[in-house]
Order: sequence, then structure tokens, then C-alpha cells
Amino acid sequence: MSDSRTAAWDQIEALPQASLSDLFAGDDARVDRLSGRIDWGEGEDAAGIRFDWSKTHLTADLLDAFDGLAEASDFAARRAELFAGEPINVTEGRAAEHTAQRGSGSEASVEEADALRTRMQMLVEAIREGALGDVNHLIHIGIGGSALGPDLAVDALTRDLAYVDCHVVSNIDGVALEEAFAACDPATTLVAVASKTFTTIETMTNAESAMRWLREGGVSDPHGRVIALTANPERAVEWGVDETRVLPFMESVGGRYSLWSSIGFPVALAAGWDEFAAMLEGAAAVDAHFRDTDGRDNLPLRAAFADQYYARVRGCQTRAVFAYDERLALFPSYLQQLEMESNGKRVTSNGEPVDGPTAPITWGGVGTDAQHAVFQLLHQGTHMVPVDFIASIAPGDALDPAHHAILLTNCFAQGAALMAGGNMSADGKDPAREFPGNRPSATILCDDLDAATLGALIAFHEHRTFANAVLMGINPFDQFGVELGKKMARDIEGGAAEFDASTKALLEASGLG
Amino acid sequence: MSDSRTAAWDQIEALPQASLSDLFAGDDARVDRLSGRIDWGEGEDAAGIRFDWSKTHLTADLLDAFDGLAEASDFAARRAELFAGEPINVTEGRAAEHTAQRGSGSEASVEEADALRTRMQMLVEAIREGALGDVNHLIHIGIGGSALGPDLAVDALTRDLAYVDCHVVSNIDGVALEEAFAACDPATTLVAVASKTFTTIETMTNAESAMRWLREGGVSDPHGRVIALTANPERAVEWGVDETRVLPFMESVGGRYSLWSSIGFPVALAAGWDEFAAMLEGAAAVDAHFRDTDGRDNLPLRAAFADQYYARVRGCQTRAVFAYDERLALFPSYLQQLEMESNGKRVTSNGEPVDGPTAPITWGGVGTDAQHAVFQLLHQGTHMVPVDFIASIAPGDALDPAHHAILLTNCFAQGAALMAGGNMSADGKDPAREFPGNRPSATILCDDLDAATLGALIAFHEHRTFANAVLMGINPFDQFGVELGKKMARDIEGGAAEFDASTKALLEASGLG
Repeated sequence: MSDSRTAAWDQIEALPQASLSDLFAGDDARVDRLSGRIDWGEGEDAAGIRFDWSKTHLTADLLDAFDGLAEASDFAARRAELFAGEPINVTEGRAAEHTAQRGSGSEASVEEADALRTRMQMLVEAIREGALGDVNHLIHIGIGGSALGPDLAVDALTRDLAYVDCHVVSNIDGVALEEAFAACDPATTLVAVASKTFTTIETMTNAESAMRWLREGGVSDPHGRVIALTANPERAVEWGVDETRVLPFMESVGGRYSLWSSIGFPVALAAGWDEFAAMLEGAAAVDAHFRDTDGRDNLPLRAAFADQYYARVRGCQTRAVFAYDERLALFPSYLQQLEMESNGKRVTSNGEPVDGPTAPITWGGVGTDAQHAVFQLLHQGTHMVPVDFIASIAPGDALDPAHHAILLTNCFAQGAALMAGGNMSADGKDPAREFPGNRPSATILCDDLDAATLGALIAFHEHRTFANAVLMGINPFDQFGVELGKKMARDIEGGAAEFDASTKALLEASGLG
Repeated sequence: MSDSRTAAWDQIEALPQASLSDLFAGDDARVDRLSGRIDWGEGEDAAGIRFDWSKTHLTADLLDAFDGLAEASDFAARRAELFAGEPINVTEGRAAEHTAQRGSGSEASVEEADALRTRMQMLVEAIREGALGDVNHLIHIGIGGSALGPDLAVDALTRDLAYVDCHVVSNIDGVALEEAFAACDPATTLVAVASKTFTTIETMTNAESAMRWLREGGVSDPHGRVIALTANPERAVEWGVDETRVLPFMESVGGRYSLWSSIGFPVALAAGWDEFAAMLEGAAAVDAHFRDTDGRDNLPLRAAFADQYYARVRGCQTRAVFAYDERLALFPSYLQQLEMESNGKRVTSNGEPVDGPTAPITWGGVGTDAQHAVFQLLHQGTHMVPVDFIASIAPGDALDPAHHAILLTNCFAQGAALMAGGNMSADGKDPAREFPGNRPSATILCDDLDAATLGALIAFHEHRTFANAVLMGINPFDQFGVELGKKMARDIEGGAAEFDASTKALLEASGLG
């Protein structure tokens, strides 16, 4: 770690740690200073998201010190490299150009992304106009970054208007694919095969089984029902997909940042092109904010300040996200990959061992469900867990307004309770009914959870993850940690290598030894 | 903490910490000694589960010391109280009689459970025989313990043979209920309302909205389509459910242990009575093992030894569970409630502050999906995460056997890789491709994931959770930690209390202030 980064951390760690209630008591301007909005659109289309970080332990002094850490970490230079399409993924020698998909990047990359997107739009619109006959179902086969984004966005955006019945299948366990088969009619089903390399074993095995199912279901040319979403179009054509149904994306788009590329095909098909375009526009608004705002006023960077504070100063090994919105049920899973695969590392970009904790474990769920499952630990457990609450002011349902009012009331009440604490016994003395309080939370309050807002939410977390990586000095864009397990699986299949006695016994018990 | 417990912990903490590879290298009998099975059935029906804890850091010395801790914690006496139906839930002055639902408990409670179960069986069979007309859909409304168990078991057991199309709705967010409505025909839908008190705000609000939907859908007597699952039958009758369709359960069955009672109604209706009964039998086999086995040979207790070791000696704030089986997709969520709501506490049963960490955060997912999302952090992150793998030798699918073989191979390869480590670069020196290894995992290998096995898996974790609580000296059966948030929500609705400036601003921004 550079001397200046060490000095910034020393300063951060030396600052006093007041309780949240004390921070509020002494400071009428706290909420305003630690809340901010990102907005987009104009007139009737104006909308945005409020980010309230006031119920975290950030103070003016901490913000000063973290601004210093960002400077010592060359945050502005790293960010400029990101947006310029420079090879910021140093271990793999390539750029990370997800923002180019949304219009911010090098001119050449933005143009290439535009051209690929136009190609995708033409195919989506042709399918919707009947070019591939009746289409009632889409089985989208992909895993990891090729599944989590489409699954989240289709679930969030198409609850009342899906053009096709969409099933995202990722697991190699055949039970997953059989569930999709049971719900679909082969005669009106398209299959999207999503794999950056078009070699992922789960995806290609599932794709082969899907071809067999189509054939057995009376489809004479199963490969004629496939749309390939890949950065390796040659391979898709070799596998049997006609070039007109291959939607390429750029090699410089990482798997966990690929929703914005042709991997987003199911979103565009199921929700419609306008919705997909709106998602990109919401993300672009966050790109502009992140690119053009400096220091603590940069909201993803400010969130990263708090993340680093809790991880390093308070020793929190986790952070939790609770979406008080059923449409965001898959958002915590999406964030798990984005944050943990990006920043669950142990060396810096230079290959030096890191000198502190890297990514915490991201976990969470949906409110109010989680209140009846895991909030006991948040309120009375021994581990401090910084919590993010996410909610939408506009309801997603058309039932009695009591539903949405209770939903939001509970969301805000939980943040208030975590901070305030108290004692719930009659005499105020029963230790089993004591709440220590002083537990931090942030609230992300959307005007309305539409496609633009979903895009903005995701982009906010992409940039927050990047900001965390810069502050830690690590490369968030590789994922070598997944390689050893893959190699061991190949070794087992090959039968060559020696394994530990436990692995041997398990293989033998399963008839695989 | 008693002197003898302090002494046991001192002994545990003083023991040397060898690497997993070293533990294997020095000991040919390690796998046998740290693996065990729980079995049930005879002849062709014989089946069971293998529990392999050899890839954890448990040693013979640690097991000795933990046996001492169990003794110092009066484990045998606490367990006897549990099975005898004594008021082991001391803060609420009542018993915890989930095992009585499975035949192990005080004679009176086992008899009462049997009688209630017979009543439930009669209603289930009457419905299946047409007593309530055509039934194609079941909307099960409940939250927390009244939802997670039915949701898990219906999803795991009815993928190819559900008698009814079952929708579990928990969230107060109306989006959840609307999703169920969209999938159901009011004319052939039953509604199960599951609430121990029959006052839970989410459940009763959703139940009212469901009645409105039935009425608007042409059902003249909506309450006539309701089955009530509750420990407060009077209240259900008051609300409008005819006594013949109220299925009571015992007050001494805790919410997060209630799947075995009438809360399991959707399982019995959708999967059939035999399947529900088999689930209880599998759980009963684990009850017998847990009740009759002492010390380290008691497998749930042994698992708790490892849990306590990682939490307290290694400072792990989390533990992860990866089910390599799509049918167990909901199992991590189920365990989150079971473990975190039970043991996420801060005082002992006597009201003293605990002297160490209580429940870790339980998180996880489904393999192989998780390999492409979060395993990067497991292999190369800075936090040690003890991992449980769960798999079934028999496949759940009828596709090409390659699917299941790849699934199991990957499961075992991950455990081997976490332990072994290595370097994946050509010269073996690239730090970004270095895996430190020595990361612990346990493997739970089922012969076949059928109803009995699911019951056994759940019961294993119930007893593991109880064993952890005994070792920590806490009461796992209350959940006062959920009360403060509820009170604050009521205060907001009432408009009386004063809130912090952030909460006020959020309420105002949402039009609720």
C-alpha cells in the first residue's frame, strides 16, 4: 500500500466513533448532507432515486478522510480509464466497457455497441412481428452473468405485460430444465443460448438437452429455434445457429456486466424494446453522475466510503440488502455476484497481498418477508450488519393502498428501530427484550420502480463496486477464483489425478469413484 | 459463563490449528471417524444420509474438548427437557414441542399432535375426494415460519406430481398476491390462511384481499373457500372460517418449527398424505439419533461443535450452504430463518450478556449456479466461510445422466479445491491465480432426495440449531428481536411518536409523513 493510502487509513481509524443517535442529536443538517438524488428525464418523465446514507456512521471528518483515501487511491484517474475504455482489467489485459453499452465510453466502442444493439433490436422486432412464427415461450439458457441479469430484469419488469412466458435456466441439474419443459409448448418455444465463450459446460449441456426436447416435441429443425447471445459468434455458428440469429456482444463486456448487451435479449423480447432502452437510459443517468461528480458528493463513491468503513474499521464481514418490493426479489442474488465475484479477491492489481478485508458477503432478501425470518439477528445478534433498504414510493400493485402503505411504513420503521434501540419490556429492564440500537442502515428510495429505475439501481451498484475496488487497490474485473474448482471437476472426470480421502469416499459412495 | 464452560473454551482455544491437508496427511482413519450416517427404513425402503465433516478443522483433541463443553453446558439435561416437553423456552414459559409432532415427546403431547394430525388428514382426503368441489389451485397465505416450510417442501416434493397448483404468498407487497391471482382461477381456488395467532398483519391483510378477489371473481361465499391453519382457532372462526375447515396446532409448536403441524397442510394437499407422513418419518429417524446418541457421535451435535469452533475460534461471521440440487433451491432461505431467528441473540437464558458471538449469518444458494456467482470469494476472498454442500446420489431428473454426473462431480470438486488450494498459472507463480486452500467444508450426501430425506434434513438442522444454542447457553425458542420494528411501524401509523430526522424525511418524501 502506498504511504499516502496508509496515512489516509491511519487517519480514518483514529477518528472517534460516535453513536448514530449522537450524530443526529448534534446536527440538524445531517440528513440533507448525507442524502442525495440521481435524476433523469424532464417534465412528466422526470424521476429519480434518493440515497439516504445519514443513518450510517459517516461523519464530516470521516468524509474528509475518505476523500483523502480516494485521492491517494487515484480514484479520478482509475475512473477516467474506465470510461475511456483503457485496459483497466490489468490481469487479463482488456477494458471493461459496460458503460459503452449505455453511451459513455470511447467513441469506437460506443459506436460498436450501438451497431450491435441495432442488430438486436431488429431481431427482437422481427420476432415480435412473427418472423419466427408463433412464439409463446422463451427458454433462456445461461449461467452466472448470463442468467442473473435477465432473470432479475424479466421478473421485475414483466409481471403484468410479458410478451412471452420466459424461463431462465442455469443449473446443470436437469431438474431445472425439466421445470421449464413442463411449462412450455415446443411448437411455440424459442431457446436463447447465452454464453460469452459459447463453451460453458452447464449452458451447452442444457442447450443440447433442449434441442433433444424440441426434436422429440415435433420440431424438425431445433437449431432453427435458437437465438445465440455470445462474444464468440463463430462458435455459435459452428454449433448450428444460423448467423441471422446470433447476437454478438463485445469481448470487453464482462459476464457480470453483460445485461446491457445482447445478454439482455430476453428483457427486450419479453418487456419490449422501449423498456430495454429505458433501462439503459436509467443506467446512463448514473454513469453521468458517477463520471462527473467528485469526492463525497459522488453517491456510489460515498456508499463505498461507508462500505470500506464497516468492513475495515468495524470488522463487518457482511452487508445486507433488503428490497421492500416483491419485484426486486432477485436483486440480492444479482448483487451477490456483482459484488462478491468482483471484489472477493486477495491480491491488489499489482499482485501484492491486500492489507485488509476485501468484499464482504452480500446477503439479504425481500421485505416484509425478511422481518419474519432474519431481522431477529439484525436487531439482537452479536454481529454488526450494515443494511441497505430499497423501496419505491409508487406502488407496484393495484390492490387496496393499505398494502403499499404498510410495506413502506415497515421499511422505514426497521431503519429507525435498528438505530434507536430500546427495551420492549413493561419495566424496561428485561435483558431479553433489550435492543442495543446504533445499528447502521442506508435507504435507497425510488420514485417509481420502472425500467429506467431498475437500470439506475444496477448501474449505481456497478459503480459502487468499482469504487470499492479502487479504494482497495484491486482489479474487480477478473475472476480467476472460479478456475480451480473447474479444473478439479475436469480432473475427476478424467480420472487421472489423486484426491483427498474424503473426496475419494464421496465419489465412491456416489458410484462415480 | 460457568467456570467449567470457561475452562472448556480455554482448552479449545489453546489447541493447535493444523491445516486441513496436514490433518489428512497424518491420519488414514480421518474420513471414517468424521463421517457418519443416519438411516431409516428397511429392505428396499432403507435409505439415509451421509454426513462428512472430515474437511473441517475438527481434530480428536478438539472433539475431546467440545465433548467437555457439551458436558459443561448440561447438554444431556437440556436435550432431555426438550424431548420431555418441559418449558425449555424459559422467557416465554413454554415447551418447544416440534418433536412431539413426529412422535417423540411427552405422551400427552404426542397424543394431542396425533389427534390434530388425524383431523388434518381427514380434511386433506375429503378435499382430494371432492368435498369442496373442483380444486385446481391453492393460495397459501402466511409469512415467516408459516410460509418458508410449506414453500420449501412443496417446491422440493411436487415438481412432477402436484395435486394442486400451489402459490405461497407472504409479502405485504400486493405485487406478490397479484402474481398468485394472475395464475389462478377463482372458481377452483382454495385459500389457506396460516398464522399462529391469526393476527399477523401481512397475513390478515392478504387474506382480506384474497376474499375480495374471490368475491369479484364470482365466488359467492369466499370464506367458504378458506382453510385456517392456526394455534388460535377461535379467532379464525370469528374471522369467518367454518370450524370444519380450521386446522389447529399446538401453542407449544414454534413458528419456525411448524411445518410438521397443520402449517404443513399445503404439502399434504399438493404432494399427498403419504408424502407428508414420510417427511415426518424421516424427521423421526433424526429425532431418535439425536435423542439416543451421546457426544461427538451425535451428528447434529458434532456439526454444532464445528459451527462453534468457526464462529468463536476462527471469527467467522457467516456460514454458507450450497445445495447441489435444484429441488432444494429454497433450503438456504429456510435455514436462514431457522438458524438466525433462533440463535441471533445477545443474552443467555439467564439474561446475562453472552460472552462470544452468537449465530453467524447463514447464506448460500444452489450449485452449480453459485459457482458462477459467489465462489470467487470463497476461494480467493479474505473471509473464511465454512461451507456445507448438500447433494443427492439419485438424480431428480430423467434427462441425459450427464446432467447429474456433472452436478455431483462439481459438488465434490469444489470441496476438494477449497481444501487443497494451488496455483492455476503456467509457472505456478502468478499471485492473482493463487488459491490459499485450507478452507473448510462439510458434505451432506443423501441417498435420494425424497420426502423422508427432506424431513430428515430439516430435523438435522433443527437439532444442530438447538445444540448450538445449548453450547452458547441461550434460548433459541423466543424471538423478541422482531418486536421493536413492529412497534415502530405501529407508532408511525398512529402518528404519535417522534422519529429521527432521516425517518421523518423518508416518510415525507413518500407522502406518509
